[in-house]
Amino acid sequence: MGELTHLDREGHPVMVDVSGKPETDREAVAEGWVHLPERVFNAILKNQVQKGDVLKIAELAGIQGAKQTASLIPLCHGIRLDQATVRCQLVLERKAVRVECHVKAREVTGVEMEALTGVSVAALTVYDMCKALDKGIEIRGIRLLMKKGGKSGEYRVPEGV
Amino acid sequence: MGELTHLDREGHPVMVDVSGKPETDREAVAEGWVHLPERVFNAILKNQVQKGDVLKIAELAGIQGAKQTASLIPLCHGIRLDQATVRCQLVLERKAVRVECHVKAREVTGVEMEALTGVSVAALTVYDMCKALDKGIEIRGIRLLMKKGGKSGEYRVPEGV
Amino acid sequence: MGELTHLDREGHPVMVDVSGKPETDREAVAEGWVHLPERVFNAILKNQVQKGDVLKIAELAGIQGAKQTASLIPLCHGIRLDQATVRCQLVLERKAVRVECHVKAREVTGVEMEALTGVSVAALTVYDMCKALDKGIEIRGIRLLMKKGGKSGEYRVPEGV
Amino acid sequence: MGELTHLDREGHPVMVDVSGKPETDREAVAEGWVHLPERVFNAILKNQVQKGDVLKIAELAGIQGAKQTASLIPLCHGIRLDQATVRCQLVLERKAVRVECHVKAREVTGVEMEALTGVSVAALTVYDMCKALDKGIEIRGIRLLMKKGGKSGEYRVPEGV
Amino acid sequence: MGELTHLDREGHPVMVDVSGKPETDREAVAEGWVHLPERVFNAILKNQVQKGDVLKIAELAGIQGAKQTASLIPLCHGIRLDQATVRCQLVLERKAVRVECHVKAREVTGVEMEALTGVSVAALTVYDMCKALDKGIEIRGIRLLMKKGGKSGEYRVPEGV
Amino acid sequence: MGELTHLDREGHPVMVDVSGKPETDREAVAEGWVHLPERVFNAILKNQVQKGDVLKIAELAGIQGAKQTASLIPLCHGIRLDQATVRCQLVLERKAVRVECHVKAREVTGVEMEALTGVSVAALTVYDMCKALDKGIEIRGIRLLMKKGGKSGEYRVPEGV
Repeated sequence: MGELTHLDREGHPVMVDVSGKPETDREAVAEGWVHLPERVFNAILKNQVQKGDVLKIAELAGIQGAKQTASLIPLCHGIRLDQATVRCQLVLERKAVRVECHVKAREVTGVEMEALTGVSVAALTVYDMCKALDKGIEIRGIRLLMKKGGKSGEYRVPEGV
Repeated sequence: MGELTHLDREGHPVMVDVSGKPETDREAVAEGWVHLPERVFNAILKNQVQKGDVLKIAELAGIQGAKQTASLIPLCHGIRLDQATVRCQLVLERKAVRVECHVKAREVTGVEMEALTGVSVAALTVYDMCKALDKGIEIRGIRLLMKKGGKSGEYRVPEGV
Repeated sequence: MGELTHLDREGHPVMVDVSGKPETDREAVAEGWVHLPERVFNAILKNQVQKGDVLKIAELAGIQGAKQTASLIPLCHGIRLDQATVRCQLVLERKAVRVECHVKAREVTGVEMEALTGVSVAALTVYDMCKALDKGIEIRGIRLLMKKGGKSGEYRVPEGV
Repeated sequence: MGELTHLDREGHPVMVDVSGKPETDREAVAEGWVHLPERVFNAILKNQVQKGDVLKIAELAGIQGAKQTASLIPLCHGIRLDQATVRCQLVLERKAVRVECHVKAREVTGVEMEALTGVSVAALTVYDMCKALDKGIEIRGIRLLMKKGGKSGEYRVPEGV
Repeated sequence: MGELTHLDREGHPVMVDVSGKPETDREAVAEGWVHLPERVFNAILKNQVQKGDVLKIAELAGIQGAKQTASLIPLCHGIRLDQATVRCQLVLERKAVRVECHVKAREVTGVEMEALTGVSVAALTVYDMCKALDKGIEIRGIRLLMKKGGKSGEYRVPEGV
Repeated sequence: MGELTHLDREGHPVMVDVSGKPETDREAVAEGWVHLPERVFNAILKNQVQKGDVLKIAELAGIQGAKQTASLIPLCHGIRLDQATVRCQLVLERKAVRVECHVKAREVTGVEMEALTGVSVAALTVYDMCKALDKGIEIRGIRLLMKKGGKSGEYRVPEGV
């Protein structure tokens, strides 16, 4: 490895050939952060204490987004997810919503993009529901925390990063 | 304003009523960053110098993503975009790809989410094409740079932020 | 009128020509019922008293379903909805969830199908979330309650029906 | 069992984890009824005798709808259907169209929702094609008739119901 | 004119900016041919004489395909069609199905791609329904017959071509 | 064989029952041609020599189109592709772009329609990017070149055809 797998030698886009690969248990966890101006953070906090609806709408959107990965990311394979969960939590010390998406599948290819897409769509949905209050919202730190399964084995984000 | 517009008083989700609003010229620009480990950055740089295909695939995916906004973000209105462009650029000093999406529409509601979704999908596509090289990629700083049109008027990200 | 508008004289399917029609304010309200075995009704009631999440998930799915009408119903025109709300309520005396969907648009054609599709998808989502408890769930009484706008004017379901 | 499977203990939506479940033969049959005012019933009957196009359009829409289940119902797993058929029949004594959808798959989770969604989309399509004649159409009795496969085994609607 | 409009000077893909253009009446007609081995032609002919179902399924698929144009063709604008019809006819002397798609819209950009996509999807659907009989089917002659509206005015395919 | 497999005896559309069929290695290759007026051919040739972007955009669209086959072609089964590539090449002596799509899957049904849909969408995308230059573009010769796997075994287009 050391070259871009989604382009052939002449630069043509390719959906990578996985026809020879066996189906194994795949798993991935990704996270992201939606940083909020104080006023927006407080509005969600108030909603959250009372009913918790804003964050659950985002969680649901994230699950649906994870299922749409192959139609959004051009060279992704279609994946049948065995599980998808998205969790959005208010983190007081950062004035932010932390989004985590966890997916599983029995597949011939990894499910990292599904987890990352789930996080991204949930984060965008939080943004959408808050944007009338303040435009100074920012989505940060979307990254893979863990993956399991497949030839490349297990990956965990290094500690302290 | 001062409350969450996508929930009614009892916490039910609502697609905001825009039936009384006139159509005006709308515009939005959003940006985001895909931070890359050095080895990945260099692989794209080499590709970019030679053919530039990786970043153009991401640009195309971002345009398509912007058009899919209303089916991804649950409470977004359907929008007919008059224009959508996505630009991905390698930024050497940050070892990152900067993504910028610019959209226009004549609409009764803003197009910020279309610009932000365009950025997010382009960034995820860059991630997808590089992930076989290294998992330590991170998407950061997705935010609105500018919007125009509608009752709330023009917004520009404060300078120096 | 008096013939089926979606077929031409030789029986070929047609998406009705609305090119000569002016844009007017359109509105439609539809309802439907999800009848539940007592045990299922009580499980939702308990959830509803505590958090209300099941029904809000269905409401959100209904709004998203309303936006997908033209891709589900083959001969429907694409519609840009100005508003969509779905409300799900437990009705104790009927052991049922009542679903109501309300949509608005400025369009050249009616939005009845959007309201009916919103109700149907919300009802199916209630079914999906309860089906592990009991298969004896039934969706009933999906109908139009009201429509406004367009050449055929206002319609309201007759009283007492 | 006895709780809502699509919510975790804190009320967050979850796509149920089926990663440990074996693939088995799945099958489901659902039905529904579109009740028609006499004038509408007669128009379809006349069409049916001559060409049968209205009901076949609805059948085709139902098959396509069954394939879209996972993108409509937020917490449904993606399913690869091995078979899908929809049959619409005029039932003179009820002045109604009876819709039946039959689906099969080799899957780790049931296909009830696919059958119910197929019925719903076909019923909505019948509605759409008839609504110009009369708004007093009603969709009733959408329910599961039979399912096979999986841990919960076979289910058939009780006789006489 | 004289350069490729969907690429900017540096080769980046762009969805053309139509924000300054007025809405006008647009119309387009496209055609295509599905050439069939004799045995396949005769099977459809027999079906057509009896019921006409194969070709009507293709017509319906073509209408639905025309509505999906903007999600298939990356740089197409979203279009709200005012009308879409597809007609499939057996042409004995050519042993072929002739497909014609006619679309209308009030739009700021042309609808040629919608007509061409409608033809293509209908033709592929004919292929799909016949492929078990013989693989020697070929789709030919997909082209624009007529367009109206917009700055470039009317176009008709030259006679005798 | 000798009848149309997608219709039952009474002419109702059916998604063919493949529930008893084993999963085997499937492969298909299809081709098509986009014939261009000289001026358009030269514009692409010039672009191709410099950057090659037009044809790569079409290739990417074709791969995405192949993944959408089951939602476009009403009676197609959902397929998880193991690989999809599309190659567009300028053929000087024909003043045309040759499009070839190659797909693989481990499936219970063939993948011919995926290859043909990939070709069609890529060809339409070439058309879209060139149509501002000249409307006299024509898509021709979309056909299957090869298929492997399944009960009907291997097929190759006869030589010299």
